[in-house]
Amino acid sequence: MTQPAVQPLRSAVTRTDVARYAGVSAAVVSYVVNSGPRNVAPATAARVLEAIRVLGYRPNAAARALKLGSSETFGLILPENSNPLFAQLAHSVEEAADRLGFALMMANSDGSLSKERRHLRNFLSRQVTAVLLASVASEPDLSDVISADIPVVLLNQGQAAPGFAAVGVDLRQGAQEAVKHLIWHGHRNIGLVIGTNGTQKADGRELGWLDALATEGLRAGPIARAPFTREGGYAAGKRLIAGNERPTAVFASSDSQAAGLLRALHEGGIRIPEDIAIASFDGSPESEYTWPGLTTVAQPLAAMAAAAVEAVTGGGHNDNPTLRIFPTELIVRRSCGCG
Amino acid sequence: MTQPAVQPLRSAVTRTDVARYAGVSAAVVSYVVNSGPRNVAPATAARVLEAIRVLGYRPNAAARALKLGSSETFGLILPENSNPLFAQLAHSVEEAADRLGFALMMANSDGSLSKERRHLRNFLSRQVTAVLLASVASEPDLSDVISADIPVVLLNQGQAAPGFAAVGVDLRQGAQEAVKHLIWHGHRNIGLVIGTNGTQKADGRELGWLDALATEGLRAGPIARAPFTREGGYAAGKRLIAGNERPTAVFASSDSQAAGLLRALHEGGIRIPEDIAIASFDGSPESEYTWPGLTTVAQPLAAMAAAAVEAVTGGGHNDNPTLRIFPTELIVRRSCGCG
Repeated sequence: MTQPAVQPLRSAVTRTDVARYAGVSAAVVSYVVNSGPRNVAPATAARVLEAIRVLGYRPNAAARALKLGSSETFGLILPENSNPLFAQLAHSVEEAADRLGFALMMANSDGSLSKERRHLRNFLSRQVTAVLLASVASEPDLSDVISADIPVVLLNQGQAAPGFAAVGVDLRQGAQEAVKHLIWHGHRNIGLVIGTNGTQKADGRELGWLDALATEGLRAGPIARAPFTREGGYAAGKRLIAGNERPTAVFASSDSQAAGLLRALHEGGIRIPEDIAIASFDGSPESEYTWPGLTTVAQPLAAMAAAAVEAVTGGGHNDNPTLRIFPTELIVRRSCGCG
Repeated sequence: MTQPAVQPLRSAVTRTDVARYAGVSAAVVSYVVNSGPRNVAPATAARVLEAIRVLGYRPNAAARALKLGSSETFGLILPENSNPLFAQLAHSVEEAADRLGFALMMANSDGSLSKERRHLRNFLSRQVTAVLLASVASEPDLSDVISADIPVVLLNQGQAAPGFAAVGVDLRQGAQEAVKHLIWHGHRNIGLVIGTNGTQKADGRELGWLDALATEGLRAGPIARAPFTREGGYAAGKRLIAGNERPTAVFASSDSQAAGLLRALHEGGIRIPEDIAIASFDGSPESEYTWPGLTTVAQPLAAMAAAAVEAVTGGGHNDNPTLRIFPTELIVRRSCGCG
């Protein structure tokens, strides 16, 4: 093993360096490295190999770069790529990467922090150009990455992690707007369906829900905590309608939870929005095709993906981390009582 | 090359072959290929390079494998990773790849054959170990791949492409079962929502629909052709309910189309299943959370993904292509009139 796991950018040795050292053309270096397409005299090849050794040139990366123009690859780690929000995010990241000629490696942490860390290490050992991480935790431990000196951007984070660029939305502001809209519809008992974020701090969406209620002097409605999935929303919905203080409206913290909540309400013969109104968060494509359609706080995923790619390619690297917070947009459909 | 399983067996040249031809040890071959960690005399290195050239050995793949333990990467090309079916398929492929220590590069063709071919070429030039392709076309042109001599498996294909392994389900049999179930519920006018497959041949799902109707001596109901998306299903639903011969049941060829169809029917005040019953195809997670839940023909995606990975790693290479067809399973929920 002649190379550090991840080569610091400043020490990059180029094919031209090798060619100059060996006294050959750059094309000859690539013939040697690629074993073709043209033959090279054995003595010349030996000189090129010698130059490669002395300079610490990386022939594999070079071979790929020579062939491709760019061999650059991003590593994307998601909690769960088949979750509609993350599926859409992956699509946006892949598009943004592809526009710049980057390939995309994708891995699922399946909600497991240890699996997330394993994928992270794996991507680093594969020498990806940068890592885009939608972490399971809202404050991920990235000490492995820090030592590796590779650009990392945290996706879907509403707050900065020390030393890293991050891209996210204002969860609190978005949630507040949705709950205010439910209050505008006349609701006074508004429940919350939300997951846990792996920290002691309250999720921004929970704070936004509380903000909106406090502004109107309303008491907090019932809370059902469950995973940010359809199954979680379904279980939460079952609990909410079985409770003593059944709310007249519910803010669900993700469209997936809302889809499960809708199913629980339909099965219970509860009309939406007449008996219980719903607003949710994400603006995933699915939210337009539930019944009724979901009033939801949309995240601008395409813009966020482009910003994340920019953060790791455009100089917004680890030495100068930036937190970019994008505004959300309330999309009004039938589930809240509109339309 | 230390991992012959993933090479076409006939032409797999190993590090040992190179060593024998050059009259050196296998270790010396790896020193030359990796430019270290030990020095090799220039004349010896030249002899190794000569052997590599004569035998057609691929030093880059070898160098990566030696450096990383395994650097092997699959390239997965999907029509659209945020489509629920393909999102689930990508998740299953990533899991199957991860179990074997393979990373996964993922790209979207967005329904474009030219984009699919561009991604294919890009993956080949990046020297992925194998390509897993869910093609836009049911008979993709893979002449670029053939010349590259790399394992390819077609995913989600019900038929073999010349020279390539393929994994799929029996679309015709599955559709037939779903439509028979609708007939069992008493329906005599059963419509079809289906996309186009880019060939002159009828889609297996259309044939299965016709088979079931013919068995019972029923006439074909109305057909609405639209893309295999929620939007497509929505447009198709609008057309079906506006038509002269409104069906009492519809077979939708994908869950995404069925989700759009459901929305069109709900908006039209049409009750499901009382006014129009629905069965669909795929068994995506979303199908359980529509309202009503979809009766659907489930594809065993996890088993299919594992078989696809096996086809490109376990000797099922391009010289001996296999077509593996998996059985589907009819999952009965409320949309057909059950439950």
